[in-house]
Amino acid sequence: MTIMETDLHKLNVTDPFLGQYQRLVREVVIPYQWDALNDRIPEADPSHAIENFRIAAGLSEGEFYGMVFQDSDVAKWLEAVAWSLCQKPDAELEKTADEVIALVAAAQCDDGYLNTYFTIKAPAERWTNLAECHELYSAGHMIEAAVAYFQATGKRSLLEVACRLADYIDNVFGPGVNQLQGYDGHPEIELALMRLFEVTQETRYRDLVNFFVEQRGTQPHFYDKEFAQRGGTWFWPNHGTAWMVNDKAYSQAHLPLSEQQSAIGHAVRFVYLMTGVAHLARLSGNERLRQDCLRLWQNMAQRQLYITGGIGSQSRGEAFSSDYDLPNDTVYAESCASIGLMMFARRMLELEGDSQYADVMERALYNTVLGGMALDGKHFFYVNPLEITPKYLKFNHIYDHIQPVRQRWFGCACCPPNIARLLTSIGHYIYTPRPDALFINLYIGNNVEIPVGDKPLRVRISGNYPWQESVEVRIDSPQPVQHTLALRLPEWCCDPQILLNGEAVQGEVRKGYMHLSRLWREGDTLSLTLPMPVHRVYGNPLVRSVAGKVAIQRGPLVYCLEEADNGEALHNVWLPKESEFRLVEGKGLFAHKVLIQAEGAKQIAAQPEQQQLWHFDTAPVTPEPHTLTFIPWFSWANRGEGEMRIWVNEG
Amino acid sequence: MTIMETDLHKLNVTDPFLGQYQRLVREVVIPYQWDALNDRIPEADPSHAIENFRIAAGLSEGEFYGMVFQDSDVAKWLEAVAWSLCQKPDAELEKTADEVIALVAAAQCDDGYLNTYFTIKAPAERWTNLAECHELYSAGHMIEAAVAYFQATGKRSLLEVACRLADYIDNVFGPGVNQLQGYDGHPEIELALMRLFEVTQETRYRDLVNFFVEQRGTQPHFYDKEFAQRGGTWFWPNHGTAWMVNDKAYSQAHLPLSEQQSAIGHAVRFVYLMTGVAHLARLSGNERLRQDCLRLWQNMAQRQLYITGGIGSQSRGEAFSSDYDLPNDTVYAESCASIGLMMFARRMLELEGDSQYADVMERALYNTVLGGMALDGKHFFYVNPLEITPKYLKFNHIYDHIQPVRQRWFGCACCPPNIARLLTSIGHYIYTPRPDALFINLYIGNNVEIPVGDKPLRVRISGNYPWQESVEVRIDSPQPVQHTLALRLPEWCCDPQILLNGEAVQGEVRKGYMHLSRLWREGDTLSLTLPMPVHRVYGNPLVRSVAGKVAIQRGPLVYCLEEADNGEALHNVWLPKESEFRLVEGKGLFAHKVLIQAEGAKQIAAQPEQQQLWHFDTAPVTPEPHTLTFIPWFSWANRGEGEMRIWVNEG
Repeated sequence: MTIMETDLHKLNVTDPFLGQYQRLVREVVIPYQWDALNDRIPEADPSHAIENFRIAAGLSEGEFYGMVFQDSDVAKWLEAVAWSLCQKPDAELEKTADEVIALVAAAQCDDGYLNTYFTIKAPAERWTNLAECHELYSAGHMIEAAVAYFQATGKRSLLEVACRLADYIDNVFGPGVNQLQGYDGHPEIELALMRLFEVTQETRYRDLVNFFVEQRGTQPHFYDKEFAQRGGTWFWPNHGTAWMVNDKAYSQAHLPLSEQQSAIGHAVRFVYLMTGVAHLARLSGNERLRQDCLRLWQNMAQRQLYITGGIGSQSRGEAFSSDYDLPNDTVYAESCASIGLMMFARRMLELEGDSQYADVMERALYNTVLGGMALDGKHFFYVNPLEITPKYLKFNHIYDHIQPVRQRWFGCACCPPNIARLLTSIGHYIYTPRPDALFINLYIGNNVEIPVGDKPLRVRISGNYPWQESVEVRIDSPQPVQHTLALRLPEWCCDPQILLNGEAVQGEVRKGYMHLSRLWREGDTLSLTLPMPVHRVYGNPLVRSVAGKVAIQRGPLVYCLEEADNGEALHNVWLPKESEFRLVEGKGLFAHKVLIQAEGAKQIAAQPEQQQLWHFDTAPVTPEPHTLTFIPWFSWANRGEGEMRIWVNEG
Repeated sequence: MTIMETDLHKLNVTDPFLGQYQRLVREVVIPYQWDALNDRIPEADPSHAIENFRIAAGLSEGEFYGMVFQDSDVAKWLEAVAWSLCQKPDAELEKTADEVIALVAAAQCDDGYLNTYFTIKAPAERWTNLAECHELYSAGHMIEAAVAYFQATGKRSLLEVACRLADYIDNVFGPGVNQLQGYDGHPEIELALMRLFEVTQETRYRDLVNFFVEQRGTQPHFYDKEFAQRGGTWFWPNHGTAWMVNDKAYSQAHLPLSEQQSAIGHAVRFVYLMTGVAHLARLSGNERLRQDCLRLWQNMAQRQLYITGGIGSQSRGEAFSSDYDLPNDTVYAESCASIGLMMFARRMLELEGDSQYADVMERALYNTVLGGMALDGKHFFYVNPLEITPKYLKFNHIYDHIQPVRQRWFGCACCPPNIARLLTSIGHYIYTPRPDALFINLYIGNNVEIPVGDKPLRVRISGNYPWQESVEVRIDSPQPVQHTLALRLPEWCCDPQILLNGEAVQGEVRKGYMHLSRLWREGDTLSLTLPMPVHRVYGNPLVRSVAGKVAIQRGPLVYCLEEADNGEALHNVWLPKESEFRLVEGKGLFAHKVLIQAEGAKQIAAQPEQQQLWHFDTAPVTPEPHTLTFIPWFSWANRGEGEMRIWVNEG
């Protein structure tokens, strides 16, 4: 089944809400990141990423500096620039990108190898430590950037770099006696080569992905073999042991994929791997791989997914823990993991056309992904807790990884550029164009032209999602086009209504989409009403951390209490079962956002510091009426440090 | 003020409950530990502790093995044996102890130094790393053993070893130019030297304690100086950094004591230090040190003490975290810390005669300390959680330190022998004999003879504490004795009644004790009724982890729910506010114990594994009536692995 994805990044986002984020990425994030890559941000850790390429290209003298995967920051920046250029041409930015691409090309070795760490610092150690050194991961990001830049600009120079690199990798890895039967500790090459296969139609790239996937987790184990071969050393000096080699589940390499039953290990690795596998399953028609995707998605989404679309319950290994173990305060829920989750969901949508994947994708987007970036575009969360009490953070090590406010940049700077490239390529998530139908997954305002046979289907979505219930989908095609539009009926919406040109219309609902087939004509207008009452959300009874608690959701947005509106000690706040909700128009920072209020109670005590710790027979608090103000969770921590919680006591 | 403590260990415990624990210590723990010290327990980590002494004494060939403080295990065993001999003479055990003492004496260096690690392995490194190497800590334990063995048996050989050791330490440490201005990373020497001072009346020992205490935390910092002097090395190979040197609060050495405001750092270190300081404050009449004790006790007891008498909210550093941060599931609450807390409380009682210290002491004893040992005397908890869900433990690193059942022995075997010596010396905690009164702190059945002036005051306490409300205190002295008895009125008891020879009596209540002065005659009988209704206990409103929850306490015993009685998913159990409690006589494992039942509710769901994670608008559970059975928390985990929780949802 062919997905015609090539032009989806060129859609024009007109959405007032998401459009503002795209503008932030264009105007703040990309320029800021460019300064960061060039070490021009005095208060941030140095990046040295561009300089590494200059040194590797022989244009500068010096030592490599940074993470072993520092190159990927440049790649992610290039990818974000590529998508951004589709939305708003910018000759100067494109010129800068072309110069970076020339630099990258200059840093590529004659044999096609491309990695500034190994080229500069350890040329003899190429491919000696796949488990720990991210060589194929970094290659994958450069391939992704190349595909994007080609799709965005039609320019081939970086694509040629990527193909030389991929061809070289295809020589190095494979079943042959002189080849390595290995695979990377950090999946990424798989999803990147699938994208390269789609634009080049070079089947070797797809077959190489298949090799990597089938090889993963087999015995005798490749990580052990290469570990022995390099004399039992490990790369990360502060690790103390070769735990990345030994803890094979960390990189989903403990078993062949077909034997894995649960989402496990490093959450970003898991979703990156599965993104590539789902893409491969579709394009190779491999039913066994499809079943692997279905099974592992199911475990993740039904047992290990936060209400915020976050994944990864623990900080050690930034990893999944176990089914239903979803602590709110010690959670990891890395921004990048939710971005990877959207990528995985997108590939599952392409494979299955089932709205359950879009529901999770939307949950991740409107909560953890948007929450990962401050409203100023300059500060980022790496970790996204569902509950925080700042004053306790620095004293108990279980909170070591938690920051109470977003930080400017990171030593390991994976999240900010990842958010940038996701937001700029959002078109790929809004639509899934399949031969049988154009699936509309997200109701983000945009206009786009999608080829259907030899005719262009022009679609314009407008509205003020996710704040208002009305969404309009209008056909702008000058020629009539016979096709099926599949409109997602969101899981959070009990009673969606759809009018076609003002009249009720009933299509077939399959897998959560309303399928409407018709000869679409210019001016045809679908008016969706997606009622957005405030929902109380309850956890599965196996989730310990939310027993007796309730979360508030409206549309796809999860809400939270913040200290700025509700005072301290949010653990003493109660939301009665019968309380009704009021929608409130936000002001200032919350302008154009919908806040929610309800009458609740707060357990109040006078001078609790003067009281003893434990009280016999009588609770030391008096419940007093308290108006609770909930804000969209993605917008928390934009007013300085304070308590926050999503799950509130009910009763 | 003189405390006449010398004979309190000789009291005869007749208490059916505590007596059974003392028997376990005599019949199981001490022999088992002796086997362990001699490496005769096949399934336990080797100890090598006795063999280390043999090697150091030149009686055996070989290398040192074990922790740098391995000697202290032998010392703690000797101390437990000493106290145990008071309760039940045992010629064979005493002969074994005498042989061990001869071995210890033989391992002592000519100059008085005694430490098998440094003697065998690193003789040139004596006193080069006080911050990390526990030299004075190990010395302190041997001094404690020596005092105990002298008090128990009248034999002086180990006491002479201890005095030679103490004299040598007094030469090494002090303000002189050729002396070290240091102090140990792990406090213990302070409390030990105070005990040695009490039996020898050698003021140099008390003054040396004063030196150690006053030196602690001063600048330039001793740990930094010795660190620089030994070339910047650290002792523990797996530490990666010199964190014990750098994190000075870990050992309460970040500031002079007079500037410290909070209980901080390693919990055992804190209470050991404060035990010595409180003892010194009393015997030196130092008001400033007394104020330090009052202030730091207050912080600990009012803000950082679990309902179980546990201290240490976090596993990293086995340490305090911050005020009101008392998580139930990731807690540390080491058994040894609660033993140290009892020691600190005892010294505060001696200093203040205030029942608040006895209340905490009792809370620690009947909950964490007894809970540290299995009912079989062979298994021990190091860490004492208030809530556990075993199936999640091994998958989330925040639970790495938690064991779902007691373990046989530990590589770092501090807790089992510490419990043994505490239980065998319980007389020191039952009574505080001050010149003004004999304070009765704990209502443990016993009989004892305490000198008052030149007359013996014989007291017999009987009853079935903590299960039954009636306690009898009877005077058995053949001659009348004029004295004051001060009977503790427990904090948990609202309406204590006291009859003297069957008639109501009213003494003066001061600091939680009923003071009764009289010419006590043989047969005088005080009949106490300490009503023991079941209490609901509520947390201070600043404690996040217990908001909306209730704990059950009867007498000094905290109760809990276990899966064995109440099924899985205890987070879904509710105890209504109006539920009444029934006392139930335990059977089998719980024979002679009182269990508690109440009608509650459990939120039930059919096949929750088949359900989605998040439910809109309707909670996915139905509350069903459920009879809740609470067991005394100290007795949890004696029926295999299962869920347990103290704090139950109320409402």
